[in-house]
Amino acid sequence: MFSVLSRSARRVFLSPLVAGSSQSHQVCKTLKNTWNTQWSRRSHESPWERDVQFRYYFILAITAMSGYFGGSCVLYADASSNASPTAVTIKECSNPVDRKKRILVLGSGWAGVSFLKSLDCTLYDVHIISPRNFFVFTPLLPSVTAGTVEARSITESIRKIVLKKQNVKYSQANCMNIDSVNRKVLCRPVADYLEPGKNDFEVEYDYLVIAVGAQANTFNTPGVEKYCHFLKEIEDAEKIRESIVDCFELAALPYLTKEERSQLLHFVTVGGGPTGVEFAAELHDLVYEDLCKLYPDLMPFVNIVVIQSGDHILNTFDQRISHFAEQKFQRDGIEVKTGCRVLEIQQNAIIMKEKSTGKKVEVPHGMVVWSTGIGTRPVIAQFMNQIGQHDRRALVTDEWLRVKGCENVYALGDCATIEQRKLLEDVAYIFTLADKDNSGNLTATEFKEALDSIRERYPQIDLYLKRQHMKDVMKILDDPQTYGEGERILLDVEQFKKALSKVDAQMKALPATAQVAAQQGEYLSRCFNRRKKCEVEPEGPLRVRGDGRHQFHPFVYKHLGQFAPLGGEQAAAELPGDWVSVGRSTQWLWYSVYASKQVSWRTRALVIFDWSKRFIFGRDSSRM
Amino acid sequence: MFSVLSRSARRVFLSPLVAGSSQSHQVCKTLKNTWNTQWSRRSHESPWERDVQFRYYFILAITAMSGYFGGSCVLYADASSNASPTAVTIKECSNPVDRKKRILVLGSGWAGVSFLKSLDCTLYDVHIISPRNFFVFTPLLPSVTAGTVEARSITESIRKIVLKKQNVKYSQANCMNIDSVNRKVLCRPVADYLEPGKNDFEVEYDYLVIAVGAQANTFNTPGVEKYCHFLKEIEDAEKIRESIVDCFELAALPYLTKEERSQLLHFVTVGGGPTGVEFAAELHDLVYEDLCKLYPDLMPFVNIVVIQSGDHILNTFDQRISHFAEQKFQRDGIEVKTGCRVLEIQQNAIIMKEKSTGKKVEVPHGMVVWSTGIGTRPVIAQFMNQIGQHDRRALVTDEWLRVKGCENVYALGDCATIEQRKLLEDVAYIFTLADKDNSGNLTATEFKEALDSIRERYPQIDLYLKRQHMKDVMKILDDPQTYGEGERILLDVEQFKKALSKVDAQMKALPATAQVAAQQGEYLSRCFNRRKKCEVEPEGPLRVRGDGRHQFHPFVYKHLGQFAPLGGEQAAAELPGDWVSVGRSTQWLWYSVYASKQVSWRTRALVIFDWSKRFIFGRDSSRM
Repeated sequence: MFSVLSRSARRVFLSPLVAGSSQSHQVCKTLKNTWNTQWSRRSHESPWERDVQFRYYFILAITAMSGYFGGSCVLYADASSNASPTAVTIKECSNPVDRKKRILVLGSGWAGVSFLKSLDCTLYDVHIISPRNFFVFTPLLPSVTAGTVEARSITESIRKIVLKKQNVKYSQANCMNIDSVNRKVLCRPVADYLEPGKNDFEVEYDYLVIAVGAQANTFNTPGVEKYCHFLKEIEDAEKIRESIVDCFELAALPYLTKEERSQLLHFVTVGGGPTGVEFAAELHDLVYEDLCKLYPDLMPFVNIVVIQSGDHILNTFDQRISHFAEQKFQRDGIEVKTGCRVLEIQQNAIIMKEKSTGKKVEVPHGMVVWSTGIGTRPVIAQFMNQIGQHDRRALVTDEWLRVKGCENVYALGDCATIEQRKLLEDVAYIFTLADKDNSGNLTATEFKEALDSIRERYPQIDLYLKRQHMKDVMKILDDPQTYGEGERILLDVEQFKKALSKVDAQMKALPATAQVAAQQGEYLSRCFNRRKKCEVEPEGPLRVRGDGRHQFHPFVYKHLGQFAPLGGEQAAAELPGDWVSVGRSTQWLWYSVYASKQVSWRTRALVIFDWSKRFIFGRDSSRM
Repeated sequence: MFSVLSRSARRVFLSPLVAGSSQSHQVCKTLKNTWNTQWSRRSHESPWERDVQFRYYFILAITAMSGYFGGSCVLYADASSNASPTAVTIKECSNPVDRKKRILVLGSGWAGVSFLKSLDCTLYDVHIISPRNFFVFTPLLPSVTAGTVEARSITESIRKIVLKKQNVKYSQANCMNIDSVNRKVLCRPVADYLEPGKNDFEVEYDYLVIAVGAQANTFNTPGVEKYCHFLKEIEDAEKIRESIVDCFELAALPYLTKEERSQLLHFVTVGGGPTGVEFAAELHDLVYEDLCKLYPDLMPFVNIVVIQSGDHILNTFDQRISHFAEQKFQRDGIEVKTGCRVLEIQQNAIIMKEKSTGKKVEVPHGMVVWSTGIGTRPVIAQFMNQIGQHDRRALVTDEWLRVKGCENVYALGDCATIEQRKLLEDVAYIFTLADKDNSGNLTATEFKEALDSIRERYPQIDLYLKRQHMKDVMKILDDPQTYGEGERILLDVEQFKKALSKVDAQMKALPATAQVAAQQGEYLSRCFNRRKKCEVEPEGPLRVRGDGRHQFHPFVYKHLGQFAPLGGEQAAAELPGDWVSVGRSTQWLWYSVYASKQVSWRTRALVIFDWSKRFIFGRDSSRM
């Protein structure tokens, strides 16, 4: 037994594969079961033997727990799939090939990879298509621009991620067209020397999972495409890094005027969201921790500017964080220009309009990073036209991530948006269902029961209660006294509507973050894993317009907080439960969370090494 | 005293700057002096105290010694320059600015950097111009192609290398034209978006050091420029890495025929020199250690081929190494095609001629690496035309590295070749000098004295004696008996000529290696450092045609051996003194030598980390 245990322990520590927290949960359960079984069987063993065994279990348990809370635990995927009863069912089929449905996944970002990692691949034939054969840990992209971490330290090969999964194919190709009627996708291989169109191929599917992400949104501002850097892909980050060094090297050339030097070293970020702010902070650290030693004469000419159209930077964060960031930037000498709309980007200058005065202002620049928001990728825009969604900014799905207007097509991550069903549209139906005695009025009990049973289908109810700090669902009624008291409360349909009228206003599109995409991926894979079971025993909420229950629970996003590293070893964090944390300790929290959230042990080791390397040797400023 | 010592210790261990071995020598001396002083002053101290102090000194000494023998030691450059008496002399000048000569260095490779590192920069105004603001440890370039080490691990910023040097400027620019008549150089800044020609600038010099290296030589073979990869620059290595992954990803696409897969996975290296062989070995390791796990189905289609025009690969090495490499490659399944001349490269095939049969053969390919030799860079070719060297393959210099045909211009490294003076051209002069009694004949003593005094000027004499295993210089006479015996030996001028006739045949152009370039750079900086002193007291050999001595010793190359890593943790090495070593232990010797030869502690740490990372996690195959 010892040898078996130590072998598993080695597996846990050495495997390059990391499974999601659901799997770590499974480890905990497995551990408990195994312990109980072993305990009952070996009651003849001495206390000492039991103690040694327990220590092994304890180490295993700690590993599993750390994975559970830190968001990651290492497991061989085959180990867990061997244990899965569904895999056995498939093997029992006389001809499993006929029965396996084909899932086609487009994209290898957060949504796609998190879907893949949790998917039981023994149940389906899975094909992933993406122009990038690797996953990028995007929250660290701004760190790559400054060389704080290296590009390869935050990427992991897709093939490595699915190494131990069965029935998974990967093709390095761009998706050129989606034909949801004939269930096939047109793809174009990626390689520099290929002639476009000559090597295209088609892939058929039974289920299509679209997770291609988004691209930068220029809002059709002239000059942006030509003169700005974006910060969406790993190549963008590397180009920015090269460009920063270029600006310094050009400014260091002899015979330049002061004005030319100053223009070259004017670094501008358009967009005061998390990406823009983090980039400005990283750039500031790079300049004042490392480049200042190599280009001491150029320091007086350096300017870092953040241009924001709103009144504050980081305006999706808590106000306290926003203020802290602004003060920190002021101390650091990073100029924040709020309330400015960029009209045009020229080769060496930005033309913008101050909203308060209406004046046109010109800001010189040596380099601009444009990070104002996300736009639709051409292939998605084309697909949206085909399915009648041409007026939307992203693929519209229902709460089960199914694309509206076609069948067996799912969309998640930045390329999709969930259209939450409005409560008021269904209120009449709900009233009929709730009014069990057909009296035309609801009693307090009926009202409560109705709300309880529809809260999962319309999560805005809970959101509203939470935001208003209401613990009792009855508080939703403005003034219960109007309708009577206690059990005598009676509402007619109009009063019912009025009570719920404010709830729909809580609905907001989910932010385009890694967190949302990862949760959606994991959610969708859970649905796919349970598809067979849920066809027989649907687990979702009651249908309001129809009979029975929905097959699955709808997707609900759980916000786990967000970070904004602000440079100089300081960070700000919004934590669950309205907590806000700022300062040095938050930066260390950031380090530990970002290390634990890495997709593999390899990237985890590399990222930690890069951080240490930066402390010892500084950042590298070679131009490549 | 303890605090002072521990501070120096920290410097030694933490500083990112590495000084040459001459500096480490100085450390040893300083240590000895300091120890003696401290010892005599503190004779009242207890033996225990002395012991602790000695331990500190011991650690320092070991560090210094390791630098001395391993070829590198860490020192702050300012520490040594403060101690330099020349610096003081300069400071004493009433107007030092007028007196400092400007050295312009073109290039940041082995020659340029080794020149800079050893140069006493307090004596000159130094300006380096290079399109790359970093130094590349080129012997590890083949490892970058396979991802065994990362590109940034073998590069170090030029600005970091010269960080603590005074009077050193660097400009990131290409040299476009050298005007040796007016002593100025035309430069063009490097940045992607600059319009060519609009930002050119001129730099004047008093001394010009040309160390721009060479480029790949295509021998005008059709298709090479279009379809082949070279392996000279860091970008080349990264492109090859991307291209290897592309070949595998393309071959993994569905709907491909077996022939197409086989063609895509046919990797060809043209040129069986050290670079080509090392690349083939690295590729083999990448494929059979890492990619085989990710693309198991593609393994039957993989082919690695080395095409060599000569009869053996590694033909500049000892024959034993050449045979070992061929046998190792045969065992590994790397195909070696010797005696083949490549006629043309097409998009998917190589056309070549078998020398033995005269037949034309077609070899399919997915990727070709062309590493057949070096050619002249355009700016050097243009300069050679200007100074009448248009018929040469590289800039011709004398033994003091001075470019022939112009003044104050030095050339070293791959862009230059030393034209060694022929002994036979000067033999009549030498005879006259040696024949002290003007007898028209040389006695044995006169003959010996003559050879002794000209051996430095004509190093081919020593080379000849060494190759023929002659210990006594008299053995150079075919049969001393012909000329008499012992002191009675008498030679006339014709007999003297005959005796020396075979010596000139020993002269060979130096190989285009890092070792030669580095030694030349160090040699030249030593000359520059001693210029003032040697103007008064020339240290070189006697002038044969003229009076007095040459100002400096001529450059003499010391071959310290060479390595050829052959993959699978095996390497071959040619060591000084005709020793040859092959196998696993040689690979570990290779690891330690290459780690010790790194240009800075940063790259040393990174390279060692990369090697360890490869052992633990394998090589990364993300396409970027």
